[in-house]
Amino acid sequence: MSTGFPVEDYLRRVAAQVEPRLSALADARAGKGPPRLVEALRYALLGGGKRLRPALVLASCEAHGGDASDTSLAMRFAVALEAVHTYSLVHDDLPAMDDDDLRRGRPTVHKAFDEATAVLVGDGLQSLAFEHLLEGGEPAAARLARLLAANAYLMVEGQARDMAGEGQRLSEAEVTQLMATKTGALLAAAVSGGALAAGASAEAVHPWGLKLGLAFQIADDLLDLTADTATLGKRAGKDAAAGKSTLPALVGIPEARRRAGALLDEALAAVAPLGPRADALRALARFVVARTK
Amino acid sequence: MSTGFPVEDYLRRVAAQVEPRLSALADARAGKGPPRLVEALRYALLGGGKRLRPALVLASCEAHGGDASDTSLAMRFAVALEAVHTYSLVHDDLPAMDDDDLRRGRPTVHKAFDEATAVLVGDGLQSLAFEHLLEGGEPAAARLARLLAANAYLMVEGQARDMAGEGQRLSEAEVTQLMATKTGALLAAAVSGGALAAGASAEAVHPWGLKLGLAFQIADDLLDLTADTATLGKRAGKDAAAGKSTLPALVGIPEARRRAGALLDEALAAVAPLGPRADALRALARFVVARTK
Repeated sequence: MSTGFPVEDYLRRVAAQVEPRLSALADARAGKGPPRLVEALRYALLGGGKRLRPALVLASCEAHGGDASDTSLAMRFAVALEAVHTYSLVHDDLPAMDDDDLRRGRPTVHKAFDEATAVLVGDGLQSLAFEHLLEGGEPAAARLARLLAANAYLMVEGQARDMAGEGQRLSEAEVTQLMATKTGALLAAAVSGGALAAGASAEAVHPWGLKLGLAFQIADDLLDLTADTATLGKRAGKDAAAGKSTLPALVGIPEARRRAGALLDEALAAVAPLGPRADALRALARFVVARTK
Repeated sequence: MSTGFPVEDYLRRVAAQVEPRLSALADARAGKGPPRLVEALRYALLGGGKRLRPALVLASCEAHGGDASDTSLAMRFAVALEAVHTYSLVHDDLPAMDDDDLRRGRPTVHKAFDEATAVLVGDGLQSLAFEHLLEGGEPAAARLARLLAANAYLMVEGQARDMAGEGQRLSEAEVTQLMATKTGALLAAAVSGGALAAGASAEAVHPWGLKLGLAFQIADDLLDLTADTATLGKRAGKDAAAGKSTLPALVGIPEARRRAGALLDEALAAVAPLGPRADALRALARFVVARTK
């Protein structure tokens, strides 16, 4: 599967570009906002993570011939999307939701601070994401903000499906719908937003991103079954413990691996006409699914 | 103080315009989203309330000569702002926050449904607000969305100040800063957004709205001290019980009443040049403070 594209270098480079911007997002209110809130925003935003969604935004923008430089609209969208993703992790970890103590090898926000602060950090991050994205005032920024809002709402639907499905045996169709919203929505928004920032059609790319999102979630569910807590940086085996239906649980590990591979192949076939400009995007797609091996 | 303007009729008319739109916001995902989430969104959005913020948006738009009709941008902003206000109430009522069982005479969302659903309703409402506001694609919608995002973030800061101040004696300056963010931000955004939707300058109107926001919060704190639970539709005396610092607690009830009146007079003086077009706006401002008598 290797194409020689240095995907881990690419991810590191994106992280190095994105993290000062995430830091600036929290620090914009330092000295003005309540210190504990600013500190908790920084803790949440700078807690590591692969920055896969920003990388997909920038790679998709480059694949469509757009500007993905430091001062580009694509970069603002990448930062806004990561802020929305971060808010969703902070709220998903809350006691009333998945009740997790550990995230990326560190205490979750409500453990490191308190529950009220975690609620407010998530709420504030969603607002900051839209404010940051819209600060340039370009008409394309408004279109990207609408894309972000629509998919951020779908993500909430996915989380609601996830909570409702606990302890129940969901059908394959229901599990697929859950994955498409909870994880697929933001990943699809990453690639379609990158295309939109490049002046291309978001609609043409969204299905590609959704396939990648499904493959990513299957990979995640496989890791939850097969890796240990130290490797994951979060509690392993928690889906089974919470009585959650996942595709690997429904169809078995080998068949789930096969499906993730098939989704990747479909995604790669769709992006083939973009040529070498899309090398980073292809490599990121392979990287997402390679985690399952 | 009466000018003969039928302010309660105006509020009723706005509520009758806004509520079908709030209902449509929840129902847009009916049959697609998880039924319990859609039901909880409806419950939160249609729980009564005076719809004061939408009324201020529309009255401010009219005061500045703009279009505040059913299909106007001002109406979309009014609905989006009320959705953001509603999300903040749902999250503020959570056990980890103010822990309230009653809101507008009914069980709060986490009591009527559950805590996870209340978190998700709030999160989803914020996304829906931006999606709704941006759906027209006008450049002015993007400016309004940025104004909304910035003030929604300030509101979160205000809530963080409120939580941090519990059980402590805040200074008058700290209480004023708390009121200016927690309540003032969205009320100021209502009047400055209405002006912006009319093509006027938001900056010129924002300080006016902030004064009104402070007067509104003082009125609210006075009501909390003087009214009973049945009248309020929410738990009375809860600020004192929670050890919260309020202006009436710091300076006494008569002085707090005097300050609310002075803020109103300043606001009315600032809006005087707008002439009779601003009658509804003036009447709404008086209505806000009259609640303290």
